[in-house]
Amino acid sequence: MEHLKALIRDVPDFPMPGILFRDVTPLLRDAGGLKHVVDAFTRRYGGQGIDVVAGIESRGFIFGAPLAVALGVGFVPIRKLGKLPADRITREYALEYGTNALEMHRDAVTPGERVLLIDDLLATGGTARAAAELIQELGGQIAEVAFVIELAFLNGRAALPDHSVHALLEY
Amino acid sequence: MEHLKALIRDVPDFPMPGILFRDVTPLLRDAGGLKHVVDAFTRRYGGQGIDVVAGIESRGFIFGAPLAVALGVGFVPIRKLGKLPADRITREYALEYGTNALEMHRDAVTPGERVLLIDDLLATGGTARAAAELIQELGGQIAEVAFVIELAFLNGRAALPDHSVHALLEY
Repeated sequence: MEHLKALIRDVPDFPMPGILFRDVTPLLRDAGGLKHVVDAFTRRYGGQGIDVVAGIESRGFIFGAPLAVALGVGFVPIRKLGKLPADRITREYALEYGTNALEMHRDAVTPGERVLLIDDLLATGGTARAAAELIQELGGQIAEVAFVIELAFLNGRAALPDHSVHALLEY
Repeated sequence: MEHLKALIRDVPDFPMPGILFRDVTPLLRDAGGLKHVVDAFTRRYGGQGIDVVAGIESRGFIFGAPLAVALGVGFVPIRKLGKLPADRITREYALEYGTNALEMHRDAVTPGERVLLIDDLLATGGTARAAAELIQELGGQIAEVAFVIELAFLNGRAALPDHSVHALLEY
């Protein structure tokens, strides 16, 4: 998979000074790039009894929705505060300054279902941890937490100690 | 496609009193629902010389990304203000109260490319119009503007007079 790194754009000082942003839009723009990522995940998770793919807003939607179609299962969007219209649960998580929150519909996961949680990038792991806690609050079992990119130097896996974590590309 | 309406949930008074929200999350959650939508679009747009699929944040990502994979073309995210890290163009559009804005990376579309623009729902058409204008500013040709749901009583097609518009489900 390492050749896919040629399709990841490094943008210095985004969203703030000192941060090197890993931009996946050239990979998405490439006709084979997104398909390559989806195929790699499909090889890993096909036949593993995944019941549903849950993607974190909003880049997690871009990778999670095609993966759900490829696996022949449903897709659940885990959204930012105030976006989901029906009965929902909420989980706050800490940012460097202040807090953020994610939400799921209460009927998005049935107790006992095996859920594959996916996002584009693992940094400190706070967002993925909140998403995993939402799924578990609904009784879902986390089959694995999957990322396209892992910023290994931030040790985000430490925020997900109870879960198997997989990333296609590591920096 | 009318049978898919059984998978659309009506939520009264969201996001504000008097609005009947058409919620696509039960369709996404259904193992065959999202695939059915993607297959329908693939039948329509396969072999039509589409160069790239552009989806509007964030539900447009959920339908657009699997469609791009199915068509074998790249995917371009059209995002809300401040989300795209590299050189970009911006278009403001009016809401009932105030304004909103969408952005595209300047390298997202090459002049002359045939772009399929997709979002989940056509209401008044302001968001889709801003997205179409961004694509045209980059020299892209809009092959068609596709929606899963059209709220026909809001006459959003009037906001897109120069474009072919297609929707799978009409209310």
